[in-house]
Amino acid sequence: MKARSGWLGALALLMAGTAHADDGYRLWLRAPAAAPAATTVAIRGDTATLRLAAAELSRVLPAGMTVMVATAADPGVAALRLPFAPLGDEGYLVRPVTLDGRPTLLVAGNSDRGALYGAFALLRHLATGGTAAKATLTSTPKVKLRVLNHWDNLDGTVERGYAGVSLWDWWTLPDLKDPRYTDYARANASIGINGTVLNNVNAKADSLTPRYIAKAAALADVFRPWGIKVYLSARFSAPIELGGLKTADPRDPQVAAWWKAKADEIYRAIPDFGGFLVKANSEGQPGPRDYGASHADGANMLAAAVKPHGGIVLWRAFVYAETDPEDRAKQAYTEFKPLDGSFADNVLVQVKNGAIDFQPREPFHPLFGAMPKTPLVMEFQITKEYLGFATHLAYLGPLFEEVLSAKTGRGDETVASVVDGSSERHRLTGMAGVANIGRDRDWSGSTFNQANWYAFGRMAWDPTLKAEPIAREWAQQTFGTDRRVVDTAVAMMMGSREAVVDYTGALGLAHLMATGHHYGPGPWVADLKRPEWNPVYYHKADRAGIGFDRTKTGSDAVAQYAPPVAKRFADPKTTPERDLLWFHHVGWDRKMASGRTLWEDLVAHYDRGVTYVGDMRRQWDGVRAQVDAERWQKTATYLAVQEREARWWRDASLAYWMSVNGRALPAGVAPPAHDLAWYKAQSFRYVPGHHD
Amino acid sequence: MKARSGWLGALALLMAGTAHADDGYRLWLRAPAAAPAATTVAIRGDTATLRLAAAELSRVLPAGMTVMVATAADPGVAALRLPFAPLGDEGYLVRPVTLDGRPTLLVAGNSDRGALYGAFALLRHLATGGTAAKATLTSTPKVKLRVLNHWDNLDGTVERGYAGVSLWDWWTLPDLKDPRYTDYARANASIGINGTVLNNVNAKADSLTPRYIAKAAALADVFRPWGIKVYLSARFSAPIELGGLKTADPRDPQVAAWWKAKADEIYRAIPDFGGFLVKANSEGQPGPRDYGASHADGANMLAAAVKPHGGIVLWRAFVYAETDPEDRAKQAYTEFKPLDGSFADNVLVQVKNGAIDFQPREPFHPLFGAMPKTPLVMEFQITKEYLGFATHLAYLGPLFEEVLSAKTGRGDETVASVVDGSSERHRLTGMAGVANIGRDRDWSGSTFNQANWYAFGRMAWDPTLKAEPIAREWAQQTFGTDRRVVDTAVAMMMGSREAVVDYTGALGLAHLMATGHHYGPGPWVADLKRPEWNPVYYHKADRAGIGFDRTKTGSDAVAQYAPPVAKRFADPKTTPERDLLWFHHVGWDRKMASGRTLWEDLVAHYDRGVTYVGDMRRQWDGVRAQVDAERWQKTATYLAVQEREARWWRDASLAYWMSVNGRALPAGVAPPAHDLAWYKAQSFRYVPGHHD
Repeated sequence: MKARSGWLGALALLMAGTAHADDGYRLWLRAPAAAPAATTVAIRGDTATLRLAAAELSRVLPAGMTVMVATAADPGVAALRLPFAPLGDEGYLVRPVTLDGRPTLLVAGNSDRGALYGAFALLRHLATGGTAAKATLTSTPKVKLRVLNHWDNLDGTVERGYAGVSLWDWWTLPDLKDPRYTDYARANASIGINGTVLNNVNAKADSLTPRYIAKAAALADVFRPWGIKVYLSARFSAPIELGGLKTADPRDPQVAAWWKAKADEIYRAIPDFGGFLVKANSEGQPGPRDYGASHADGANMLAAAVKPHGGIVLWRAFVYAETDPEDRAKQAYTEFKPLDGSFADNVLVQVKNGAIDFQPREPFHPLFGAMPKTPLVMEFQITKEYLGFATHLAYLGPLFEEVLSAKTGRGDETVASVVDGSSERHRLTGMAGVANIGRDRDWSGSTFNQANWYAFGRMAWDPTLKAEPIAREWAQQTFGTDRRVVDTAVAMMMGSREAVVDYTGALGLAHLMATGHHYGPGPWVADLKRPEWNPVYYHKADRAGIGFDRTKTGSDAVAQYAPPVAKRFADPKTTPERDLLWFHHVGWDRKMASGRTLWEDLVAHYDRGVTYVGDMRRQWDGVRAQVDAERWQKTATYLAVQEREARWWRDASLAYWMSVNGRALPAGVAPPAHDLAWYKAQSFRYVPGHHD
Repeated sequence: MKARSGWLGALALLMAGTAHADDGYRLWLRAPAAAPAATTVAIRGDTATLRLAAAELSRVLPAGMTVMVATAADPGVAALRLPFAPLGDEGYLVRPVTLDGRPTLLVAGNSDRGALYGAFALLRHLATGGTAAKATLTSTPKVKLRVLNHWDNLDGTVERGYAGVSLWDWWTLPDLKDPRYTDYARANASIGINGTVLNNVNAKADSLTPRYIAKAAALADVFRPWGIKVYLSARFSAPIELGGLKTADPRDPQVAAWWKAKADEIYRAIPDFGGFLVKANSEGQPGPRDYGASHADGANMLAAAVKPHGGIVLWRAFVYAETDPEDRAKQAYTEFKPLDGSFADNVLVQVKNGAIDFQPREPFHPLFGAMPKTPLVMEFQITKEYLGFATHLAYLGPLFEEVLSAKTGRGDETVASVVDGSSERHRLTGMAGVANIGRDRDWSGSTFNQANWYAFGRMAWDPTLKAEPIAREWAQQTFGTDRRVVDTAVAMMMGSREAVVDYTGALGLAHLMATGHHYGPGPWVADLKRPEWNPVYYHKADRAGIGFDRTKTGSDAVAQYAPPVAKRFADPKTTPERDLLWFHHVGWDRKMASGRTLWEDLVAHYDRGVTYVGDMRRQWDGVRAQVDAERWQKTATYLAVQEREARWWRDASLAYWMSVNGRALPAGVAPPAHDLAWYKAQSFRYVPGHHD
């Protein structure tokens, strides 16, 4: 210890210690929830939801304004003859009107939920630079069910969750209604999410016991005023486990009766219960196929149970049979396409965005457009199981946009128009996002991960929205309107997912990660029991070339797409290079659009990915003074982790590819830091999101 | 929806929604950590610790004061000739002095840590009604090692933790130094805690790998300026698991060399590493007895490894042999007492407060006073494994005080004087508390649980402090100085642990809980493999009587106490009634001091416990207006849970005792709500703190 005898001023002391500038808890809703009211916001029609809408506005709108939150049913509002009809059940309008002789800003919908969405739209308008006085806003959601899927287990762990344990403290529910449940609902309402599946699709039957129904009901009570319905993942074998039946065969009348009674019991506790989500006959889950019945038999039996209450069934198409030697990418289509038309009218089939499993890039799932008689729900993964967990910055807006804007090959139909029902005029439509939310203080494990939750909500509301403006409005709300910060954040975000593609395996490669926990590279893994568990199954690299032949000479998965798309994907020359190795096994020396060989291009992609992360670090360093210390530091720390891990992915992958193809690196390219044996020897325990 | 056409004022709207008055994060440190400096606090001697001390004071002390934080080594301070000698290494003094001709409030110690403790003492003085100007405070800790034991696993779970997952995010360490680690250290420093064992005593060898040593080092770097050392629980078989050796026999030179090299490696990363905590040959953990070596052999071998670096070994005495049919309460004494004098001088033996396992009440452990040549560390459990988890309000101050003030029977010796070393003038002394800290926002699962952390720290500093004044100073700091709130909180707290004793089993009963997770009553459990796992082993109730005969006619455990105490406990007439059934099997009709029979008294205790919780609810209701909404509501909710569960304990226990003794309830006593079969049929999964 160095003693100094002079007086030392303490002005700088406050930088030490525990000053928390901002811990990220407030998400994109920067106006403190407990701020005093600046203005008085009136409501007409006294519902809890309208009161919430008014409370949101009263804290933010400038003093002295006259604001009215109401529904179209109010006689005074009705007399204004505004265009309420197109708003449907959840749309809103915000506009200056004269009410009771006074200039008034009206925030309204046909329902109180519409008015609440209007209030949040007005907040967004203000936070992104708009002014209140003459605000004129209107929007109607294009998708009816905008639903988060929590892969949350009853023991508090979250499958593929990287933001702490489950938000639901099942142990203290239903007694304790943690204020955080309200904040969760508020955040969701602010972006239009109107449903949440509380428990993991790998479900335990316990969720359907009276004890747990009471817990779910307590959450439903908190969420209801925010326009959010509760759903549960249902374990298909629950009639055996809870009901003592000998079978869960959906064609057995006792089974159907058990589910009907169970649905009745749930609806007594939760009158607006949304319905069931089911993962059946996939990865070891029980299902109707255990009894020789079809997915439609199973779904329709459950649908009949919830139908009298207005409930629905979300039936997942993510299946692959344990014994089916067929290309895994083909199996969902093979199994579900023939069932089109045989589902009850309150069943939706939930399809992952791609045919494998939430890889950094996959071509859109061939089921989209292939089941016109069935409403298909888009299932995106918001949590980043394959994109670097919480620690990598990867904005998923471009991934969502890429999939939604894909053309199915049936006229002008896009995946978005399938999902929003405009293609086939389905009454029910839906989009599901596997949540990245946990009990971490910043909800999603990092500030930038919050943008993925946000983007999902916005695109579920309108699947034609674009990733870039969503990034911008998120950044404005999250960091404030300092142009430099916003521009920097948006610039970082927009290329970030492509960077992950680049450093984990570009050009259509996929499923190259380590086993089980999916942390880090494992392209060499070849010894797992089922062929499709092994990365080598997916890349099929050998001395001559690399890639999975999904054309006629291979698995012919391309034939699952509509003819124009199938034709394009069938030919390596017309296949977009980004999807090349997904559909084709090609030579390492194949000439690419760049003029380089495939091998050279692949190497360049790895380097580009690593370089992009380094660039993000430099960009973020440049706004250090403009961003609050805590969020800046955590982001900077994670970017450093990401750069290290991007380099690890690159080096390990290159070392492996070189061992396969026997080639040298192009001139000037840095060799891997270690030899292949070193990368293969890396092993990790206690990896988040993975619970054996 | 009911539409109303009148204008509805929104003044009350702010009560709705998400207003968080106080989420408990600030603990007993109510001055916001990030508050602006009110006054300038100078330091002499530029160390990180002194800067932290000055920062704490600058945010709280009134503007215009002249305050100096310094050490005795400063020439200007030395010239004052203040009584620094008795302060030792960590003591402090705060007093008005004249320095450089100015009236100055001096906050100082022989070390910067002493000065930091002085700063926190001054904050406590202010928050409990003292004034700054003439503050004169001084204190020296009576115990050298004041250590939290975290039973935190590397997968984030916490054994017997009821406040969320582990505070340590092992996955993001060492990169991310979560600001919460700083807040944790600050809270500990504020109550004098100077060490923390990061990982569970049921240890994984992984904690000793280079990867995890780097993570521990990152935490040590955060904690160091707050005067807190890091310790690790060491898995005794690590030389086999990590080192590839064939044995972990402490007498094997290769084993000793492995540990020496491991210690050297740790000290390179953490120069002030505290040392190892070891649970050996207990509940399945490996240890020296696996090789026929003694606990002393094991402890001394590890002690030699850390000795060159100034490290110590904390060796736990909580053992019971899997095959030993002896009374479990006797085994630690039987095994350790003969080893007194054979431990190296940097080994401390860590002894639980009682001979069984952290029951709501146990007589003090007979090892205290029985190993005069060995420094004995008191191990308290702050987390409430057996006292209702986080949801029951049970202030442990009276439990700590009861044990520490117990007379060992050797002259005037108390347990406190054994622990603080004054009995035998040990150089090393220690007190350990099994932490109740997790990632829950309020740290400990409830506001009142924070008081147990606080009380542990204060009593570790001075084991002669009393529970009531500690409760009062905690309540003043936690809730503010409103007399009504403080009086209410203290009144609730002071009887709360006795209430738990009453409703779970009074009069010396213990270990009556359900299996495994320890949630709820299970006095009937009799079918577990090992006899001492079963509650019936402990209560030995039959038609004639109840209680464990530990006198000569039974296990003779009383003989482990010093003669005067042994004599008192050997006779039911001189045994305090609160411990009666711990030491004696007596008849149900035994006359008690109350004039009632034992059975009547036992029933009365159950009712008193339930009534006390109801009284706490009413008292808490009475301060609703004086306590911030969030903390008030959560406490009120938990009190309701506690009353329900207290009643469950009472009813289930009475139903069982009646089934054993065939007696009716005394007149006017309410019968159990259900029959015994109902209570036996209750089962619970996903119980916190228990991970199979």
